[in-house]
Parts: sequence; structure tokens; C-alpha cells
Amino acid sequence: MDEIKERIAQAACGFVEDGMVVGLGTGSTATCFIQALAKRYDNEGINIVTVSSSHASEKLARDLGLPSVSIDAIDAVDLTFDGADEIDAKKEMIKGAGGALLKEKILAQASRELVILVDETKLVEQLGKALLAVEVVQFGHKLIQQKLMNYATASQQRMRGDGKPYITESGHFIYDLALKAPFESAAGLDEKLKLIAGVVETGLFYNVAGRVVIGYRDGTIMMR
Amino acid sequence: MDEIKERIAQAACGFVEDGMVVGLGTGSTATCFIQALAKRYDNEGINIVTVSSSHASEKLARDLGLPSVSIDAIDAVDLTFDGADEIDAKKEMIKGAGGALLKEKILAQASRELVILVDETKLVEQLGKALLAVEVVQFGHKLIQQKLMNYATASQQRMRGDGKPYITESGHFIYDLALKAPFESAAGLDEKLKLIAGVVETGLFYNVAGRVVIGYRDGTIMMR
Repeated sequence: MDEIKERIAQAACGFVEDGMVVGLGTGSTATCFIQALAKRYDNEGINIVTVSSSHASEKLARDLGLPSVSIDAIDAVDLTFDGADEIDAKKEMIKGAGGALLKEKILAQASRELVILVDETKLVEQLGKALLAVEVVQFGHKLIQQKLMNYATASQQRMRGDGKPYITESGHFIYDLALKAPFESAAGLDEKLKLIAGVVETGLFYNVAGRVVIGYRDGTIMMR
Repeated sequence: MDEIKERIAQAACGFVEDGMVVGLGTGSTATCFIQALAKRYDNEGINIVTVSSSHASEKLARDLGLPSVSIDAIDAVDLTFDGADEIDAKKEMIKGAGGALLKEKILAQASRELVILVDETKLVEQLGKALLAVEVVQFGHKLIQQKLMNYATASQQRMRGDGKPYITESGHFIYDLALKAPFESAAGLDEKLKLIAGVVETGLFYNVAGRVVIGYRDGTIMMR
């Protein structure tokens, strides 16, 4: 699996051009991408800066010597590279298993193009087998969960290993939803969820992915 | 003006019944209501608990001897009492001058009824003369502001008296928007704003107000 991710990362790295502001996603695939990008930076001395969707990705980028700036220092991002939990033929996705969905979506929204890196196991015909992460504010979160349950068969607050509530880098809680299937559309469901007061973001991503780089077990890399 | 608010508060207090969970808004009108409610609680010994939309309202309620619980301790709210910056004939509102819009909206959403207390100066034919407060996450807020500007002629980050950014009780920034006029509908604009990644809440309230208690300069109190 890691070998597939490395091949995907290497292929995607080729999209980066001199002078670009590069957005870095979060998770195991994004990690492979950051490593590949750092190698390319070392070997070719391309002139780039990176901006990260999490402290973890930013730390890794810095540790590997990649120029890294705060999102407050830039006006726009050229290309952002990120993974996905599920992606369908319309390039609609569920993301958020890693907990960085909010910052990832803000970064994607600010980017000229979002490049998605996945292995073939992430390709689905219909979104919704994966749990949908929904980021909510702490105030009244149990009452917010009641509203979320209109769209889910089950929902669970995400916890840390030590049993305490998982808190995102922006200070929010996450509820993981088992969605009522099939749901109408990613856009329709996202809209309904986001209109609930206290919902900050959902893991539904749509109308945002540009190129998708897909790695197969047989070694093939496909671009869509 | 304060006299009008006191009369409104007194009238609204009569809606509270024994055994109720009462939601407390934030701002000068809500403050008058809390004071009136505390008097009624002292005089009549009604059995109620309150839940607040801000630390300030909670502190006031406690200081005045009102039973006060965390929102995490309740399943629902009976009546919530709150003010508004502007309200039109459809009971659509702009709220948020006081900075508590997010918690106020979560409380309203959890309430059987939201009772709005206003003096006649808050009645408008068309919403939008007041600035619209939009609560956004800190990460990438300047890029989020760029998106907000699609709906505004001007936008400004709210600052504290000491020149530092105003931070809400949930840890977010606020941008105050001068809206492009006229805008289609409160619901339509709210939906567009909330679909921007990083927007947590807006000061547009609709489909949520129950009774409205209006105070006039001549001493009249009207209910709608």
C-alpha cells in the first residue's frame, strides 16, 4: 500500500511548477506527497512555498526543509494536494477521517486546483460507506447531534485514545455519522447539514476536485 | 429607551411558566429581561432553570440568583428570550451586534419558541441597513473575507477596544458586512454565506422567531 502511495505522490509531484504556492493536505497520502515534494525540492531546487492544512503536515514540511508559510501570508494557493476517504465518478468525496476536514476545505477553496491522490480502494460508485465526519462547535453539541440524527442511522462523538473528546485544531468537536443510504446528493446533504446552527463543516467535498491521481495495485497510475 | 426595554421585559416575563427551561439571549434587551425574570423568580418563587447564550448573561443570571445550568445538562429549551438589531414583517432578523450570534442561534434552534424583544426602532421594512455579523474560523480568515465580499460592498474584521481582533466565546473572528442591497432573501443569503468553507454562522435569523414583543415610545406594548 505504501508503495502505491509513493508512486502516486511521485506522479503528482510533477504537477508542481517553479514559483508555485503549494497547499499540503493531511493524512498518510499527503505525508507521502510531502516527502516526494521535499525530494524534488532538494534535487531540482525549484522555487516554491508550502501552506499546510494541519500542524502535523506543516511540521513535516519544515522538518524536510520545505519553505512553509502561514495561510495568512498568502493571497491564493496554486495547487493543493490531498487524499480522500471515498471518491466517486463525479469527483465528489468524503474526507475527514484524519480530522483536518475544515482546514483542508478552506485550503481547497482558496486553491486554483485541488489535486486528489487516492489508491483504487477509495473509488466508490456511491458515497456513504465511509463515516461522514461533521465538525461542530462545543457549545450545545449534544443538541446539535440531535439535529444531525435526521440524516444518520447512527452518530458518535469522536474520542481520543485516552477517552477524552477529540478536539480539532480550530477547537471544535467531531461527530462521525453513518449516513442514511442512499442520500440524494453530496451538495444537497452538505447544504442541509451546514444550515444546522453549530455545524462548522462536513467531510463532503464536491465541485472542488481538479485532477485525480489514482494508484492501482498492479502498479498503474491513472489520471482523471 | 431603558424604560421601554424594562416594559418589554416585564411583559415578556409573563410568558414564563412554572417548570420551564428558559434560554437567555445576550445584549442590553436580554439584560433587562434577565433582571425582570429574577424579580419574578424572587417574588413568586416559580420553579425554572435558565441556560445562557454568553458568559455575560450567565454571570448576570447567577448574580441575581436565577438557577443556571450548562447547555450540556438539558435536552431542550422551552422559551428563549432575545433581542434583535433589525426585524421585518416576516419576523426575519439581523442579530449579532453583541457578538453572541452563534450561541444565540444554537439556543434558538434548541428552543420550542424564540421570543424576540425589540423597541420600535428595530422594526424595518427591508433588512440590511444594519451591518451583518459573520462568524468565521481564524484559519485563513483573510481568504474567507475575499469570498464574503461577493455579497458585501464593504467588510471589516471586528476589533476590540485595544485594537486586537475580537474573538468570540467559541474562538472565532467576526467580520461585519455592509450588504449589497437589496438582497434576495434572508434564507438565500444565509445559505450562500454558510456554504463558504470557514463561515461558522451569520447574523441572519429566519423561520425561528415566535412571538415578538414590541415596545413603543408612547408606552404601548404590542405583541405579534
